[in-house]
Amino acid sequence: MKILIINGPNLNLLGKREPEKYGHSSFDDYYKVLKSRYPSIIFDYFQSNIEGELINEIHKSGFSSEGIILNAGGYTHTSVALTDAIAAVPAAVIEVHITNIAAREEFRHPSLIGISCAGSISGFGLDSYRLAVEALIELNSLKNK
Amino acid sequence: MKILIINGPNLNLLGKREPEKYGHSSFDDYYKVLKSRYPSIIFDYFQSNIEGELINEIHKSGFSSEGIILNAGGYTHTSVALTDAIAAVPAAVIEVHITNIAAREEFRHPSLIGISCAGSISGFGLDSYRLAVEALIELNSLKNK
Amino acid sequence: MKILIINGPNLNLLGKREPEKYGHSSFDDYYKVLKSRYPSIIFDYFQSNIEGELINEIHKSGFSSEGIILNAGGYTHTSVALTDAIAAVPAAVIEVHITNIAAREEFRHPSLIGISCAGSISGFGLDSYRLAVEALIELNSLKNK
Amino acid sequence: MKILIINGPNLNLLGKREPEKYGHSSFDDYYKVLKSRYPSIIFDYFQSNIEGELINEIHKSGFSSEGIILNAGGYTHTSVALTDAIAAVPAAVIEVHITNIAAREEFRHPSLIGISCAGSISGFGLDSYRLAVEALIELNSLKNK
Amino acid sequence: MKILIINGPNLNLLGKREPEKYGHSSFDDYYKVLKSRYPSIIFDYFQSNIEGELINEIHKSGFSSEGIILNAGGYTHTSVALTDAIAAVPAAVIEVHITNIAAREEFRHPSLIGISCAGSISGFGLDSYRLAVEALIELNSLKNK
Amino acid sequence: MKILIINGPNLNLLGKREPEKYGHSSFDDYYKVLKSRYPSIIFDYFQSNIEGELINEIHKSGFSSEGIILNAGGYTHTSVALTDAIAAVPAAVIEVHITNIAAREEFRHPSLIGISCAGSISGFGLDSYRLAVEALIELNSLKNK
Amino acid sequence: MKILIINGPNLNLLGKREPEKYGHSSFDDYYKVLKSRYPSIIFDYFQSNIEGELINEIHKSGFSSEGIILNAGGYTHTSVALTDAIAAVPAAVIEVHITNIAAREEFRHPSLIGISCAGSISGFGLDSYRLAVEALIELNSLKNK
Amino acid sequence: MKILIINGPNLNLLGKREPEKYGHSSFDDYYKVLKSRYPSIIFDYFQSNIEGELINEIHKSGFSSEGIILNAGGYTHTSVALTDAIAAVPAAVIEVHITNIAAREEFRHPSLIGISCAGSISGFGLDSYRLAVEALIELNSLKNK
Amino acid sequence: MKILIINGPNLNLLGKREPEKYGHSSFDDYYKVLKSRYPSIIFDYFQSNIEGELINEIHKSGFSSEGIILNAGGYTHTSVALTDAIAAVPAAVIEVHITNIAAREEFRHPSLIGISCAGSISGFGLDSYRLAVEALIELNSLKNK
Amino acid sequence: MKILIINGPNLNLLGKREPEKYGHSSFDDYYKVLKSRYPSIIFDYFQSNIEGELINEIHKSGFSSEGIILNAGGYTHTSVALTDAIAAVPAAVIEVHITNIAAREEFRHPSLIGISCAGSISGFGLDSYRLAVEALIELNSLKNK
Amino acid sequence: MKILIINGPNLNLLGKREPEKYGHSSFDDYYKVLKSRYPSIIFDYFQSNIEGELINEIHKSGFSSEGIILNAGGYTHTSVALTDAIAAVPAAVIEVHITNIAAREEFRHPSLIGISCAGSISGFGLDSYRLAVEALIELNSLKNK
Amino acid sequence: MKILIINGPNLNLLGKREPEKYGHSSFDDYYKVLKSRYPSIIFDYFQSNIEGELINEIHKSGFSSEGIILNAGGYTHTSVALTDAIAAVPAAVIEVHITNIAAREEFRHPSLIGISCAGSISGFGLDSYRLAVEALIELNSLKNK
Repeated sequence: MKILIINGPNLNLLGKREPEKYGHSSFDDYYKVLKSRYPSIIFDYFQSNIEGELINEIHKSGFSSEGIILNAGGYTHTSVALTDAIAAVPAAVIEVHITNIAAREEFRHPSLIGISCAGSISGFGLDSYRLAVEALIELNSLKNK
Repeated sequence: MKILIINGPNLNLLGKREPEKYGHSSFDDYYKVLKSRYPSIIFDYFQSNIEGELINEIHKSGFSSEGIILNAGGYTHTSVALTDAIAAVPAAVIEVHITNIAAREEFRHPSLIGISCAGSISGFGLDSYRLAVEALIELNSLKNK
Repeated sequence: MKILIINGPNLNLLGKREPEKYGHSSFDDYYKVLKSRYPSIIFDYFQSNIEGELINEIHKSGFSSEGIILNAGGYTHTSVALTDAIAAVPAAVIEVHITNIAAREEFRHPSLIGISCAGSISGFGLDSYRLAVEALIELNSLKNK
Repeated sequence: MKILIINGPNLNLLGKREPEKYGHSSFDDYYKVLKSRYPSIIFDYFQSNIEGELINEIHKSGFSSEGIILNAGGYTHTSVALTDAIAAVPAAVIEVHITNIAAREEFRHPSLIGISCAGSISGFGLDSYRLAVEALIELNSLKNK
Repeated sequence: MKILIINGPNLNLLGKREPEKYGHSSFDDYYKVLKSRYPSIIFDYFQSNIEGELINEIHKSGFSSEGIILNAGGYTHTSVALTDAIAAVPAAVIEVHITNIAAREEFRHPSLIGISCAGSISGFGLDSYRLAVEALIELNSLKNK
Repeated sequence: MKILIINGPNLNLLGKREPEKYGHSSFDDYYKVLKSRYPSIIFDYFQSNIEGELINEIHKSGFSSEGIILNAGGYTHTSVALTDAIAAVPAAVIEVHITNIAAREEFRHPSLIGISCAGSISGFGLDSYRLAVEALIELNSLKNK
Repeated sequence: MKILIINGPNLNLLGKREPEKYGHSSFDDYYKVLKSRYPSIIFDYFQSNIEGELINEIHKSGFSSEGIILNAGGYTHTSVALTDAIAAVPAAVIEVHITNIAAREEFRHPSLIGISCAGSISGFGLDSYRLAVEALIELNSLKNK
Repeated sequence: MKILIINGPNLNLLGKREPEKYGHSSFDDYYKVLKSRYPSIIFDYFQSNIEGELINEIHKSGFSSEGIILNAGGYTHTSVALTDAIAAVPAAVIEVHITNIAAREEFRHPSLIGISCAGSISGFGLDSYRLAVEALIELNSLKNK
Repeated sequence: MKILIINGPNLNLLGKREPEKYGHSSFDDYYKVLKSRYPSIIFDYFQSNIEGELINEIHKSGFSSEGIILNAGGYTHTSVALTDAIAAVPAAVIEVHITNIAAREEFRHPSLIGISCAGSISGFGLDSYRLAVEALIELNSLKNK
Repeated sequence: MKILIINGPNLNLLGKREPEKYGHSSFDDYYKVLKSRYPSIIFDYFQSNIEGELINEIHKSGFSSEGIILNAGGYTHTSVALTDAIAAVPAAVIEVHITNIAAREEFRHPSLIGISCAGSISGFGLDSYRLAVEALIELNSLKNK
Repeated sequence: MKILIINGPNLNLLGKREPEKYGHSSFDDYYKVLKSRYPSIIFDYFQSNIEGELINEIHKSGFSSEGIILNAGGYTHTSVALTDAIAAVPAAVIEVHITNIAAREEFRHPSLIGISCAGSISGFGLDSYRLAVEALIELNSLKNK
Repeated sequence: MKILIINGPNLNLLGKREPEKYGHSSFDDYYKVLKSRYPSIIFDYFQSNIEGELINEIHKSGFSSEGIILNAGGYTHTSVALTDAIAAVPAAVIEVHITNIAAREEFRHPSLIGISCAGSISGFGLDSYRLAVEALIELNSLKNK
């Protein structure tokens, strides 16, 4: 089983940005732990601050991997183009957020990309990504039944 | 570790209601499977169609269990009272939905109760509940570190 | 043919509340007249001021009666949970109102439950209920053709 | 007792327009059946696609008939002029719709003409017209008491 | 000097409609008085309940008369087509209303046709028309200076 | 007959402000002409840029003069306090504007003070004031009938 | 004189919930002090988290007590049904809030139930209830004059 | 192949209305040129300022011609009735506008009739009509393949 | 203990304005009664129709008195400047209204100044002022504990 | 004559994405046909999923080609930056869409880039591009007259 | 060169109001420093809490000074009258704010007076005023070129 | 002291784009003048039309320079991602605009990125950049005190 994790804008700064709030570990550190926890899964990782490169990556991997875990950051709320990209590929795309966006500023409440996603997980810190892996494993086992 | 699952309005009809859409298994069937998968956790279950009884249950268990998994159904979007109840208790409350509410009718998009919840999981069918259990286990292990 | 009439909040006060406006006869009085006018129909009646009890009743009777006549009172305009309950049962549910809600305050104009109802009748005083009976008889005769 | 039925825009196409959805019988066919069912009532019928001609007809008959049954079609939601015409005449005007407008697109939800109507019936197919006749008979018998 | 008075929907019922509110004199009676008060002006009068006929009349007279006094009734608030018609002709068009629309229901507050009118007079009963005549005389005398 | 003219903010600059647009004559010049045209009327004039002083003046004269002509300038659209002042006095208050506010920027469309005014005249340049005088004479003659 | 105090959702947790914010005394403690301060008044007390039970209580006592002091908690902002219940009974109902709702989150600003209440008091902590008692005494003495 | 061109309100004034803006040629002149450019197509033309007559014409020709080119003018933005008429007939209806409505006043941006049209062309002056003819030829050739 | 009462626009007219509605006693009469009822409190009174003078007075007394009772009249709903003035001074400011603003026109519902006030009392006629005095006494006694 | 076609996000997937809906031919295939149909025109083609690269391309070619055909995909509805880019170059830019965006989800209705475009064509499948070529040829011939 | 600084409501309290937040120096102290920094400029200063007095001052100085630096405080967001005053005078008016209003409460985001101002500077504490002086010097030197 | 200037979309066209409006000098010309005016400051410059590259640059320099001057062009109003990037770095970011955005089209009024910026300067042409440099020098001198 192949899973692609895509991180959008500003997520490259994890561990460096407001560390008292977001923690001191980078996403790379977390990613190593996550991969070692699921040795049978082939992970791939992509990060970009550029909306269109996220779309490019979804196009590239959305036909070949079983699932995509997408934290679209600030593009979550306004990007029609990302929403269309998700709808265009057969892979199940799961929306994740580190914080619970429903509990933050009002402009972060609506998820436009949610219209095309299979499901959404938010508010569990970096563990949101692992829960998405768990969800994809289950979705995959159902498909293979 | 003690986890309470609370189901709100209409979730008592699972398995009976539009089975071609929601499947033929009731929540009770699923609940048995879930409990057997996590034998070391003490589960409790409550369902009511009455908003105030959901609040009563949150009050009763919110001081004694480690976590609450709450599918508030139609009350998710409009209940200030439920939101206040969740904020009033120390237990972590996780919002779950069987379907991905961001991909349904517009009046189902905003989650008012999300303002007070620790996190939210939606769109994975009944597996949303298991993912919430996974999330609570992780939250609990972090607290005990 | 079995028809259930469900009255929501404040309708228990009919005849007692602002009698110069709503008349002096209680719903019970009207209900007796209605039953005698349609002797071949088996009527049942339920009233509650509690939103969730209305849902419970719809669940209980929505699988066994041909039709439900529902005056959801103030829950008409805001209850997602009632809307979902109506959609979950096979019985035809007809929305009735004593007054014409389109001619009253603006917050009474939108009917959220209307999304799941078969039809709607409002503005004819208590006669709205009889018209709903008439509608259900017709619907039933069409189904049996 | 005299009742006028007024049909607004596009209702002349009944039976011809999307027959799999609206049925194969024209309004004329239905009208004959309706008249034979209420032989003691003097019916009159008017149809126009022109908003102002509907107003003309309401003016003409609204002082001489006991009741008007009005399906204003697409003018229902936006016509201040029709609303004023209904308010200007002594006849009771009943708003009818073949489909349940509360369950259709959002721009069909608000009824502007409802502000001046006595009552409203929608969602019962052509039977909505008969229910309006029933309502007018009752209204009339109350007035004559 | 030539002035055309155009009355829109429902204004043909003046004197007959809610007489305790709008008075017992018809517009015709008022029109005679008005003409006799300004003998040097050539008046013309047109009334229709049909939006498009109002447009036709504006087209017909808007190139030949010095001014048009327009009470567009319920079309005032929503008619883009009337607004465009007024903008298309060289005559000065003055919007009049018998009642003060800013003091009535909220849907009567915005005047869409006002975008293209020279000025607006409302709230003075039938005297609003005379004030518009006065305004046109002044406008005309300025143009001829 | 006594008429008070009240000019609100920025109207003291007439003749001086953007003269190519508003003309070169000050309000004082116009006021002299107006008074000479209606020698039998006792005029009074008040101008202030201070919202509360306009209210003071309405209080002072609203019980003793037959009518008030009020150009509230920028306070027209937002002042609840002015609206209440107008409603508190027995004098008929007529809202006037030099330009046609319905044809200007959207924030100038709604007139909040219109809720309490007898009528409104806008778009006729300084002649709007004379038309208001005409309207008050008529209103007064009706009252004395 | 008889006064009923009704507390809505989550108010049963006073003293237990976020004590650093809401204080350590329960409503029961406060209630004892209040009663001893007004020995000549017959108090009654009801609390429920269930919207419909609040309505039931208003129905039960609204015809027999002189006044009702109602803290409807989260139902304040959305409940049409409670608003209707208050309007249906002759007792004066006074809306109270412990905190000043106008200074909190925007969704707590509008009071729907305020439409039917006699008056409203908010922001004085538990003393809001005593002020409501004071208000009812005054209202009662005026009625008896 | 048969194509009907329908022009709505104010389009009869082309060539006469604001000629410096809309040009000096009438629609009739343009229509002759257009017909001579597509000699194998049978054109028909209808113009009315009356909304309901546009509906009548769509009904009449919508079952017999391959395509309709409709410039609904000011009715474009508000007419539910026209939208329903277009949906009721089998002919492909193409919305055209002389100017680019997305670049004009905000009330001209939304196209309500667009909900039922096959496609839309705007901003090319009178050439918008020819482009619509081109589009219909292509649509027709696809259907005949 | 020192308390300042500030009355905003139009409140100087009490007793004179719509006496059938607001009563025949002026605020001065009421103020005498109020002072005699609380002889140990030093009262001061200020009224102005000018928004900025209300701000001046809040600045002047807000540092020296224990509490301010403010009826800001029509400025309640729109004045950011008053809101800022209240926030700038240490005195507790209590918002009062004679009528229950939640039960009046919609533009009177939101209280902008409420954002900075300690609490709010509305709907009790002139008794609202006395209740505010009661509230300030209690607040003061708590501060001195 | 030189024409540049620019395709925005997700249009690179044509033929591959939901082929039952969008058809099996890629844009490249269509592009070859289009070029062969207009041999005298020099076409250029650019596609990117990156908003800023679309802007770059408009800058690069907007000064040297006669026209640009732009399908901005999901950026159509929200991109102020693209709108500004179009306004900054002398070339006529024509907005095209494969589907009729007025007939799709509401968030696809407003075209922000339309504010700066010469015209717009939508709903004709890939033929929308050819119609835009036709429009540019006409625009060009008019310019050269 | 002559520059007038105008401070609106509550800015007289600088140094005294929430000193931990706004600092301990009054505007007078800052004003002395500012004047000494630009000895060749003739400064004038005006402060008022009264909206209309700010307008008076703009009228008085707006024809005689090269520039006005205006901190309109709470009137920034709602005052049409101030906006009109700024537009009425030839002097360049620069809007300043001590805090960055875009980063504060939502009701402080829109600047209505900005519609008529030359430019705007906010968020630099008292240094915002000096930056405005710098801007006016530059504007003046450009004009004199 | 190190200052980075970042220009967003379309600002690369300065001097070339609508020169009668934006002037004939490119940003490079202005940049040279600016650097020579502040020789002690180390300037750096970056321009991109790609939103994500602006974010990249803010990340790269936001930890090493004292201040960033950002003209985000059309991304100002809608980019949550840029807003987050600004918040993520320690450097003070100052928002600048060449024109006064509060005086342009309504969609340019709200600044989303302003939520995270230290201050904002708009409307002074290219001089806005110099004023931002002045502001950063002052901010820096305060920090070093």
